[in-house]
Amino acid sequence: MSHSYRIVFDCPDQVGIVTRVGEIITQNGGWISQANHHSEEESNWFFSRIEVIADSLSLSRQQLDDALRPLAQELKMNLKVVDSARPKRVVLMVSKGTHCLADLLDRWKSKELFCDIVCVISNHDDMRGLTEFYGIDYHHVPIEKDNKQKGFDAVEKIVDDYHADTIVLARYMQIIPPALCEKYQYQVINIHHSFLPSFIGARPYHQAHRRGVKLIGATCHYVTQQLDEGPIIEQDVARVNHSDAVETLARLGKDVEKTVLARGLRAHLEDRVLVHGNNTVVFN
Amino acid sequence: MSHSYRIVFDCPDQVGIVTRVGEIITQNGGWISQANHHSEEESNWFFSRIEVIADSLSLSRQQLDDALRPLAQELKMNLKVVDSARPKRVVLMVSKGTHCLADLLDRWKSKELFCDIVCVISNHDDMRGLTEFYGIDYHHVPIEKDNKQKGFDAVEKIVDDYHADTIVLARYMQIIPPALCEKYQYQVINIHHSFLPSFIGARPYHQAHRRGVKLIGATCHYVTQQLDEGPIIEQDVARVNHSDAVETLARLGKDVEKTVLARGLRAHLEDRVLVHGNNTVVFN
Amino acid sequence: MSHSYRIVFDCPDQVGIVTRVGEIITQNGGWISQANHHSEEESNWFFSRIEVIADSLSLSRQQLDDALRPLAQELKMNLKVVDSARPKRVVLMVSKGTHCLADLLDRWKSKELFCDIVCVISNHDDMRGLTEFYGIDYHHVPIEKDNKQKGFDAVEKIVDDYHADTIVLARYMQIIPPALCEKYQYQVINIHHSFLPSFIGARPYHQAHRRGVKLIGATCHYVTQQLDEGPIIEQDVARVNHSDAVETLARLGKDVEKTVLARGLRAHLEDRVLVHGNNTVVFN
Amino acid sequence: MSHSYRIVFDCPDQVGIVTRVGEIITQNGGWISQANHHSEEESNWFFSRIEVIADSLSLSRQQLDDALRPLAQELKMNLKVVDSARPKRVVLMVSKGTHCLADLLDRWKSKELFCDIVCVISNHDDMRGLTEFYGIDYHHVPIEKDNKQKGFDAVEKIVDDYHADTIVLARYMQIIPPALCEKYQYQVINIHHSFLPSFIGARPYHQAHRRGVKLIGATCHYVTQQLDEGPIIEQDVARVNHSDAVETLARLGKDVEKTVLARGLRAHLEDRVLVHGNNTVVFN
Repeated sequence: MSHSYRIVFDCPDQVGIVTRVGEIITQNGGWISQANHHSEEESNWFFSRIEVIADSLSLSRQQLDDALRPLAQELKMNLKVVDSARPKRVVLMVSKGTHCLADLLDRWKSKELFCDIVCVISNHDDMRGLTEFYGIDYHHVPIEKDNKQKGFDAVEKIVDDYHADTIVLARYMQIIPPALCEKYQYQVINIHHSFLPSFIGARPYHQAHRRGVKLIGATCHYVTQQLDEGPIIEQDVARVNHSDAVETLARLGKDVEKTVLARGLRAHLEDRVLVHGNNTVVFN
Repeated sequence: MSHSYRIVFDCPDQVGIVTRVGEIITQNGGWISQANHHSEEESNWFFSRIEVIADSLSLSRQQLDDALRPLAQELKMNLKVVDSARPKRVVLMVSKGTHCLADLLDRWKSKELFCDIVCVISNHDDMRGLTEFYGIDYHHVPIEKDNKQKGFDAVEKIVDDYHADTIVLARYMQIIPPALCEKYQYQVINIHHSFLPSFIGARPYHQAHRRGVKLIGATCHYVTQQLDEGPIIEQDVARVNHSDAVETLARLGKDVEKTVLARGLRAHLEDRVLVHGNNTVVFN
Repeated sequence: MSHSYRIVFDCPDQVGIVTRVGEIITQNGGWISQANHHSEEESNWFFSRIEVIADSLSLSRQQLDDALRPLAQELKMNLKVVDSARPKRVVLMVSKGTHCLADLLDRWKSKELFCDIVCVISNHDDMRGLTEFYGIDYHHVPIEKDNKQKGFDAVEKIVDDYHADTIVLARYMQIIPPALCEKYQYQVINIHHSFLPSFIGARPYHQAHRRGVKLIGATCHYVTQQLDEGPIIEQDVARVNHSDAVETLARLGKDVEKTVLARGLRAHLEDRVLVHGNNTVVFN
Repeated sequence: MSHSYRIVFDCPDQVGIVTRVGEIITQNGGWISQANHHSEEESNWFFSRIEVIADSLSLSRQQLDDALRPLAQELKMNLKVVDSARPKRVVLMVSKGTHCLADLLDRWKSKELFCDIVCVISNHDDMRGLTEFYGIDYHHVPIEKDNKQKGFDAVEKIVDDYHADTIVLARYMQIIPPALCEKYQYQVINIHHSFLPSFIGARPYHQAHRRGVKLIGATCHYVTQQLDEGPIIEQDVARVNHSDAVETLARLGKDVEKTVLARGLRAHLEDRVLVHGNNTVVFN
């Protein structure tokens, strides 16, 4: 992955948006290495993600941002300009299931995921060993049944102290309080162990078994105040059949969960996910 | 497909079921060419499908059935013995979407599906030409908004007149009355254009688009009195993304629908589907 | 599908290509409804496909082409400007397998594939009935073992007479002569019944069965002089297992073949496929 | 997974095999919890795997084996009777790629894979930390270019010393000598990073990129003296497109590799894989 600036924006659609952005890039010598655009007809909304090779520009990230601002204002863009060399600061949250955590740590260690994993927070102490093996801080923050807010206040303080910008719920089995969801809007990523909107809520594999579905799935989505109803980033499924007990569904599901979470997180880390209403645009 | 008798049964589980059935087969010289068994632990229920090469037996289908009846009674089996050479009598019902009908007719013509398609019933006249090209009777039975029962009485009469034993709703957009579902229990097969239980009811592709799912699906199931909630026979999905409008979801979905319906119908025609409660066992 | 002009080109990569093309479009009031770009680093080659809403332009297709030519020359582009409202003229060629032909005809009839199917050519007479039912001309051109060229001369004449621009080998079991491949370069589309480059040549399902693979596939590709080695447009697979005899592989494979061929053809008809060397860029 | 004995055999096909095996089981009070059979018509060969609940039998594993031997001899069976409670002894071999090793260790730790991982052998020292974190012995055995046999003699001694019965090549980039393959016939499992038989040999992702395939795959197979040509246990694929560079193919491929290897190994550990000629029967 070469060093680039990512220009990511969405705005009301109209003639000439790409060309006008392109002119600003070209005037500064910018070499576009990748570009994705999407027009949503219904809502007349335009989405774009453009990668410019950093070395081709005479500008810093901030200067490129400044150069684009007047146009952004004119076209009412939600615009961000991101430096691909600056890793996002990620907090992983986990309960007792190891598969997603072990998977993400190996992907991070082998440089498949470009980010800083600043710490792991868990309501149990089980994953301390593995986390610390990878040289990452581990915080055990119990969530008490009668005073959950106390625990989540501690979580929030930790996230703030690390200046984290992304929170990944890697099979964290507690419900995040609405205020925290709001504070980190579209920065909290969850993996739900069903093909949403099927089997919202608790024990989805039991629900799936009862309904007798022939495929099980997993969904990576941003967490919002409506449990399991946030914008979907990625989904996948695996085939099952009548001979698979609930435990087998859960085992087969783990493979889907970890793959889907890793794909969704990667898209987020590369600023490929744009949220509009309750939907996402995910540029390849 | 060689000529065989299919012994299909389910019953409370206990020691020695397979062996006792096997002894009766072996005593009569029967050569088992395929056998599938499944024990469901939770409900302590046993399911089995055994194919015996017809020529290896000294018995007719009726005689084999007779030979198995005492054991069936003792073990409280739901038992059927089916002659693979006797085609099921199938009625196809369709509205205006051509893809499933065209697909099933080609599969039938090229002998991929072994059955007699005795007629096509539609609430429109659009598919008459294609149906009659294949030499199959076509019945146009309008369903009037204010008197649907009248139409379904006519449908029922046609099904009865043809001595049909299987009804396939190949994108038939009317709701079958409960009494008809009951009369042909586990003989009416529907294709629903979503990955059930997601998007039950009308316009599932619109629902899917609104929710922003990353896969769309189709479900082949037996029709029961609870709309879209009958036992699932087969499901599959296709990947979609943000750039796919509702019309594109519908187009991509068609491929899933026709494949899933054909697979589900084939399993039914070969007596591979056993229903228990609201779930199915589908033996490969 | 709204009326648009498709600007499709590839050229050596350099700074500012998209912007310069965009300027020409914008100067003429053109509204870009879809744009895809791809830079291939290794070969330093750039690929692009831009859809401009026809009504937004003050130019005809020819005038837009003229407006782009000087830039195309300067940048050494392979450029075409296509009017989406002008259907391609397609010849279908088939032997005895019905599944691809029946599938394509239904997709065409139901307007899923936008093209004119000008005729069907076959080395057998079997598909005449179905073809003529759809109101399409049918030409039975036998290929004699000892004088294949005679047959292919007749084929070429028919293709020319219909002014066809696309030839689809929808399970046509004869090898197209090199001269014909060359004449219609990247306009002859084949469906091969294996996941190429596995099982090149004859009887791929037999080869797959012998090797004991756990997935079978199909490949849609442009036909070149090297049999089964042309640029791949689309592929897919289906799961099989030890219990599947060769005939079952062939049956399961048919579903993959027809879906993959339809997807590949659709991409071709919408000018989404760009060939470079022996590879393709296929824009979604 | 309850405690059971697995009766696994293959033999020439004939009438009554299942029944005669069943009688011996039933006479000893055995409760069959799962049974799979397969007849291969071409070769007239029969395959079977039967799970009997251990507690239902009055016999030990050895006694059950003894009880079945006379029939096994008469029917010329390859028979084994396996105690599900006795874990197989597995050696993992790895070079520098971490993904398969990290994945297998987590699956083993979380009890998804039932086996004893007795040690890890590597031609590099990189994975020592992770391996020892899991409490598993690590042996660094360099393979010298000019004297590979010396290294493999050391490997063989280690495998013998640990009384291992299964060797997993979890992205081990050295070729196992024929003598070692032979000694541990159908006990050495490899993951090859292509959809075999495509792209045999070195750098399959480079080969795949050059050919422009639209899916990449991985193959889990038993290692035989013919490199990459042993019996296939499991395969899967992932979709790629023109924009994916070789490095991206390799990254996407890793997910397929680890999943396919884990599935194949699991089938092996549960004695679900029967080899016949160069093919496998893999019972679900």
